Amino acid sequence: MNFNFEGLFSFTKNIFLKIGCPEKDAQTATEVLLSADLRGVDSHGVARLSGYVRLWEAGRINATPNVRVVHETPSTAVVDGDAGLGLVVAPIAMQIAIEKAKNAGTGWVSVKNSNHYGIAGHHAMQALKNDMIGLSMTNASPLVSPTFSKERLLGTNPIAVAIPANKEPAFVADMATTTAANGKLEILQRKDEQAPSGWIQDSEGHPTTNPYGVKEGGALLPLGGDREHGSHKGYALGSIVDIFSAVLSGANYGPWVPPFVAFLQPDPNPVGDGIGHFFGAMRVDAFRPADEFKDHMDNWIKRFRSAKTTPGNEKVLIPGDPERELEQERMKKGIPLLKPVEDDLRTLGEKFDVPFKF
Amino acid sequence: MNFNFEGLFSFTKNIFLKIGCPEKDAQTATEVLLSADLRGVDSHGVARLSGYVRLWEAGRINATPNVRVVHETPSTAVVDGDAGLGLVVAPIAMQIAIEKAKNAGTGWVSVKNSNHYGIAGHHAMQALKNDMIGLSMTNASPLVSPTFSKERLLGTNPIAVAIPANKEPAFVADMATTTAANGKLEILQRKDEQAPSGWIQDSEGHPTTNPYGVKEGGALLPLGGDREHGSHKGYALGSIVDIFSAVLSGANYGPWVPPFVAFLQPDPNPVGDGIGHFFGAMRVDAFRPADEFKDHMDNWIKRFRSAKTTPGNEKVLIPGDPERELEQERMKKGIPLLKPVEDDLRTLGEKFDVPFKF
Repeated sequence: MNFNFEGLFSFTKNIFLKIGCPEKDAQTATEVLLSADLRGVDSHGVARLSGYVRLWEAGRINATPNVRVVHETPSTAVVDGDAGLGLVVAPIAMQIAIEKAKNAGTGWVSVKNSNHYGIAGHHAMQALKNDMIGLSMTNASPLVSPTFSKERLLGTNPIAVAIPANKEPAFVADMATTTAANGKLEILQRKDEQAPSGWIQDSEGHPTTNPYGVKEGGALLPLGGDREHGSHKGYALGSIVDIFSAVLSGANYGPWVPPFVAFLQPDPNPVGDGIGHFFGAMRVDAFRPADEFKDHMDNWIKRFRSAKTTPGNEKVLIPGDPERELEQERMKKGIPLLKPVEDDLRTLGEKFDVPFKF
Repeated sequence: MNFNFEGLFSFTKNIFLKIGCPEKDAQTATEVLLSADLRGVDSHGVARLSGYVRLWEAGRINATPNVRVVHETPSTAVVDGDAGLGLVVAPIAMQIAIEKAKNAGTGWVSVKNSNHYGIAGHHAMQALKNDMIGLSMTNASPLVSPTFSKERLLGTNPIAVAIPANKEPAFVADMATTTAANGKLEILQRKDEQAPSGWIQDSEGHPTTNPYGVKEGGALLPLGGDREHGSHKGYALGSIVDIFSAVLSGANYGPWVPPFVAFLQPDPNPVGDGIGHFFGAMRVDAFRPADEFKDHMDNWIKRFRSAKTTPGNEKVLIPGDPERELEQERMKKGIPLLKPVEDDLRTLGEKFDVPFKF
């Protein structure tokens, strides 16, 4: 069933208000969360709302954080998220990166003591309206095994890069550094289908196509899948995200990253504070006049989009095309929620006395 | 046969001197080129020396470039390489990034009007001795097709990231954004073996395992190989490298990148100057005290290296481990050159009256 954006927005914001978020933070957190539903990253949208609430109930999320800069130079800052919602901490940190870029040409912000920050691409895209290139990355609960490892040491650690154009829509890449994101396994489980090769290994480290492989103690695989197909590159990318997000800031990294789910306890011997993010903003005109850059981006985009296609494919996509088209569609036709997600939100609404009515 | 480092260094430097490079530039270019041979990136080492010379003979390389900053802010610069050897231009640009970082916390340099810059990792590693994280990327001759494209629009566009540690050796990732680098195809051709799936498509855009597929008009595939295995992510990464290196600087991008080989002419209607690179340097202590950071990097590295392995594998590698081990070995035992490379160098030596004697 489809739910209209305004209704879902209002419901979600009210839940954030009920757990004690200030008005402004509830607004921001809802914008970030719903942006995932609009752009088709369903696993990072309202489907996670009750998860955030449970973390708050477990005392692991501070609804009224004092998000602050603890170290800085002209082009860098480290932000302490004060255990706030990542959905609130990340936009503040991204804004700091943007302000730094206004003065120094670029701004780079590493964040500690945060929580899950929702959809990576949304944060990177905040740079666009300032004629800046935006970058956003975060570490996450360990579900991924490095090449040759049986242990889960990395999260799906996404990288997002948003690049402005002139007449063409912006280039927006937003990717997990794994072959496939965890949300895709849930889709396969529901359809009772096997996973493609290169997505998962089992708990013994053997390749498997069992879509429950990760739940049963296995792991997602880094982009590339296996050594022969370049998984050491996906592993390196996920590692870079982990290090920029957490070793630079003083957050937990690798297997120490606290799990998103409230029923799993964080490591009793953490190596840092909370989870980590990393943001960047580069003023385009710190390199060349903005119009010149954006005109060449238009040319780049048009050339790639008009490339001759391989058999059976209609057109070559520019990163961000599918998400933008989905966003336009869902703003009009509403956001489809699976029945379990709908039920989960209804129950949450009853608990907090926020009506879930559409 | 193995050739000792000093002998190859001296021979290579003398060739660069013969084509008119100043002493300092010949020294730098040789250091970069030999670094590839030492680290096992054989396709980017002395095997390319005659290629650079042919480009110089074709008037496409300026042996005495005036490499200069044409635009800058506190944390950024655009460098015009004046059609110099990338092997000379890149170290200058990387040094500018490092100097910017000393003052502004980070430094980011986009380069136009350059040529092939050799091994990406070498440039990123220059940051390490300053307790900085180094980044290096470059675009390259179009040999790669985006997902769903039959046309070759991107180069193998590598990304290198070097991160300092304390007692442990540095983390050094250096990867083409394709499933496999072009050099690996040459190895398969010599062995008369088929390529794994996901490496290549033929000229019609069908997947192929023919190791001559690229030579016969096909293309290398972005990391991931096909859509189901995440090739849209490899395509996005290669695109980001192209845009940061060339659209930011004013170099040629995408299919307009001039080919490395002198027998192929550059596009008569270029969209910029030469090829482009992008470099970054981030002072570690622009985020947290350097010793603290490096101690945590030691911990990160030790944890990952000691992870339990999948069946049949002895240990989990840290990015940079294989290259560093090879470098130590080759400094002692010499650098193995294939017969055709040896013959090519000998011919080059005769032409320029530089003895190739070992």
